[in-house]
Formats: sequence, C-alpha cells, structure tokens
Amino acid sequence: MLVFVGLGYSTRHLTMEAIEELRSADVIYVDTYTSMYEDPIIKVILELNPRAEVIVARRSDLEGAAVNELIERSKTERVVVASPGDPFIATTHDAILADALRRDVKVKVVHGISFITMAFSRLGLQVYKFGKTVTLVYPHSSKPYSVVDVIYDNLKRNLHTLVLLDLDIEKSRAMSIPEAVDILLELDYLGFLKDRLALGIARLGWRDEKICAEVLPNLALKAFPPPPHSLVILARLDPVEEFFIEYWRQSCR
Amino acid sequence: MLVFVGLGYSTRHLTMEAIEELRSADVIYVDTYTSMYEDPIIKVILELNPRAEVIVARRSDLEGAAVNELIERSKTERVVVASPGDPFIATTHDAILADALRRDVKVKVVHGISFITMAFSRLGLQVYKFGKTVTLVYPHSSKPYSVVDVIYDNLKRNLHTLVLLDLDIEKSRAMSIPEAVDILLELDYLGFLKDRLALGIARLGWRDEKICAEVLPNLALKAFPPPPHSLVILARLDPVEEFFIEYWRQSCR
Repeated sequence: MLVFVGLGYSTRHLTMEAIEELRSADVIYVDTYTSMYEDPIIKVILELNPRAEVIVARRSDLEGAAVNELIERSKTERVVVASPGDPFIATTHDAILADALRRDVKVKVVHGISFITMAFSRLGLQVYKFGKTVTLVYPHSSKPYSVVDVIYDNLKRNLHTLVLLDLDIEKSRAMSIPEAVDILLELDYLGFLKDRLALGIARLGWRDEKICAEVLPNLALKAFPPPPHSLVILARLDPVEEFFIEYWRQSCR
Repeated sequence: MLVFVGLGYSTRHLTMEAIEELRSADVIYVDTYTSMYEDPIIKVILELNPRAEVIVARRSDLEGAAVNELIERSKTERVVVASPGDPFIATTHDAILADALRRDVKVKVVHGISFITMAFSRLGLQVYKFGKTVTLVYPHSSKPYSVVDVIYDNLKRNLHTLVLLDLDIEKSRAMSIPEAVDILLELDYLGFLKDRLALGIARLGWRDEKICAEVLPNLALKAFPPPPHSLVILARLDPVEEFFIEYWRQSCR
C-alpha cells in the first residue's frame, strides 16, 4: 500500500491520522526538497517509528526512474511518502500517484495543513476574493511577464493574488520578499503595482511568522525572518478586510 | 486568551496542537452550524477535556451580542472556539477575531484541515488552474446569475471553478449535487454548461467520500452519499489532469 502523508509545517500540525500512518509504515520517504519544515522532522519520525526504513528523499528519489522502485515496494510493504504541507497542493507528487493508480497499487491520502489554507484563512481576506494563484520565479532567459499579467487580470476583476515565491531547497535558493518586490516592480509595465497595497508573509504557520501590510515598494524595507516568504497583492478591500489589513500594517511597525 | 481551533472534518484530522488546546481550555464553544463533522465531535472533546465547560454553539452563540460575553471571558479564562475545517476559511468567525483584536484580547489560531485544501489537492487538479471560488445558494427572490457569470469568466480564462453548495445546518438544509446541477442548468443562459465536464464531490475527507467526473447534466444521475456536496466545473485539462478526471470517471461507474 502507498500512503501519501501531509505533515503540515511543524510537529504541532501533525494529525492523528498522519501519526498513525507514520507509526505503521515499513518504509517512509521524507520529502525534504519541496518546502521547509519548522521542526527536525526526521528526528520526530524516527522517534514515532524506530522500526521503519526512513529515506531522507531528494528530488531524484521521488521523480523519474526511482518512482518505479517505490511503487514496486508498495505492492508488498506499507510505503509512506511524507511531505511538508499537504501532499498534492502543488501537484508535486501527482506523477507518483498517477503511476500507482495505473499499476493498481492501493493508495491512501492523508491530508495535511497546507500553506494555501493558512494563507486564505489567516490574513482576514475572503477566500471568494482570491483569483488565480501564481508562482514568481527568478528571471533567467526570459522575464516572467505572465505573473504580472495574472495580477493585472485579477485586479481588473477585483480579486486578490497569492504570489508564491521561488523555492529550490536543493539549490539552497529561496526568494525573499525584497527580491520579489524588485522583480515585480521591474516587470510592472502598466505601473499598477508601484502604489498597490500588498501583504508580505514570512514563515506562515511557524512560531516566528511575520505578516506585514504596506504599499508594495515599502514592503521591501521591512525586516522579515528568513524564507519561506510569499506575497498577496490586494484588490479593493471590504470593511472587514480593511480592518485586518490595518491590523497587519500596525503589527509590523 | 482566545484560541480558534480548526478541527478538520473527522477525529483523524485533529492536529497535535488542536488536541493540546482542547485539553487546556477552560471553556470550549463548539461551532455546530457552519459545517458537518464525520465523528461525534462533542463526545471526543468531552473525553479530551472533562474539566472544561463545553458549549454546543448555535449561530446565536457565536454571532451578535453573544460575542461580547465570549470575549469578556477570554480576558480571564482560556476560551476555545472550535470549528469544523479551518477556523477562518469561509470568514465565518472573522467578526469574533476582529472584535477580540480591537479589545486587546490575546488571540491564537490553530489551523485545521480545510475543505478548500482537500478540494485543491485530492482531485488531481492544479491549484494554479483554479479561478475565483463561488457558493451556489437556492434561488429565492432573485436568481443567482452571478454564479454562472463567475463560472463563464473562469472558463474564458481556462480556469476551473470550485462551486460550494448552500449549507444551512440550523435549517437542516444542504444542497445536493442533483439540485445544484438543476439550478446551474436553468441559469446557464449562454449554454456553456450543458456539455461541460464537471466533478461531483460528496463528503470529501470522510470515510465514505465519493468523487465522480461526468458531463454536468449526467452528474445528477449518479448516486452520492448525503451532503456535504460540492462541484468543480472544469476548464481545459492538461495531460496529468486528464488522467485524474478519467480516473474519477471510471471509479464512479
């Protein structure tokens, strides 16, 4: 059997079901490359299940040819793929799931607290007020104008945009709020963003999380704990939303 | 102190942090009206904390004048407001939170597994492919054309739409997939929905959850367990999404 387990972002986020599945697994692949975890998760897992084979998985262990072995083992053993947050929110492990279903392996999904939930919930913004979500990557050969196009399109519809920031743990690269602000302002060909209110969100769900509201350029001047970081570009606010945004402005003075 | 605790939708979803907060509370308001819970949650809470005053809260206990008492008690006691899913996803308890912050009461938020996470994660669809989310309510004095307008607008942008269905537990009313299909097809003034592929989702995250893919009119003919139900109206699918939609089609034959 193959069990996908969402770990949330902290030991505090572990669910009863996640703990039960970690305890009864024969093999546990711990995804250490799609996001960061607040606590020493490997240690926690080894304590929960000293009997299991724990594989500290890199991308090469959970993509491509390696998936074959993982699925083969799932036919006779209880194999857990454990990842930060929720197992499928960013479709990271969809390919493993699809492969397993194709090959008639029994599959179970254990949901975890996801960043998307926390963002939609914690900020005091309505889930109905969010448009399409985007990820901002570092500009390489081409500039990611598609990101500002999505933000513009959402703004036209009076919808907020959750902007996830490039995170590549194996390359030790994690985009910070000031970097993201610089990139966005450079891409802002219509000038809609230079006086746009936004939220800077650092380490959401961690003990030292920090949330600030400011006009976008000024967000880059605030002090944040290290990444993971993200942004919300705000559309027009209703009165309750206004209250919360003012709260996030005051609380990071 | 005032602690908002998300319970998820099943005892299996309880997090370490939620259990800790339920155990150390003096007073626990259990929200029993915004959504449904798979397990007998009141019994579970009483077992976790026999010492606490447990209030099986109706809407009138958590809205309007009653909020004042709750906040006053939070100044001297450890008060928990526990709700299904995540505490703020549908902004249900935002007003209590805002009031507490205004009155300088110390506040803590304990996130829970939310329906939005599960929907964005379980279906094999990309979170980046979802547009604005909508709630379909029963047509009363006016017809909710705004709902189909959002679906049309999302489809034009090649984005899926998560359609939440009317749920009023205090009035024992919960819209089913067949009811929702009828309402949507009646509102479908451009005829975009009558051959549109969609997902019917019943009791997501429960042990007897059921997910079916079909063209919208045919979804109404499938057998689903009782609500909570919801729909996803699908835009163009990429190959991985196609695989999963075919899976949801086969699995509910």
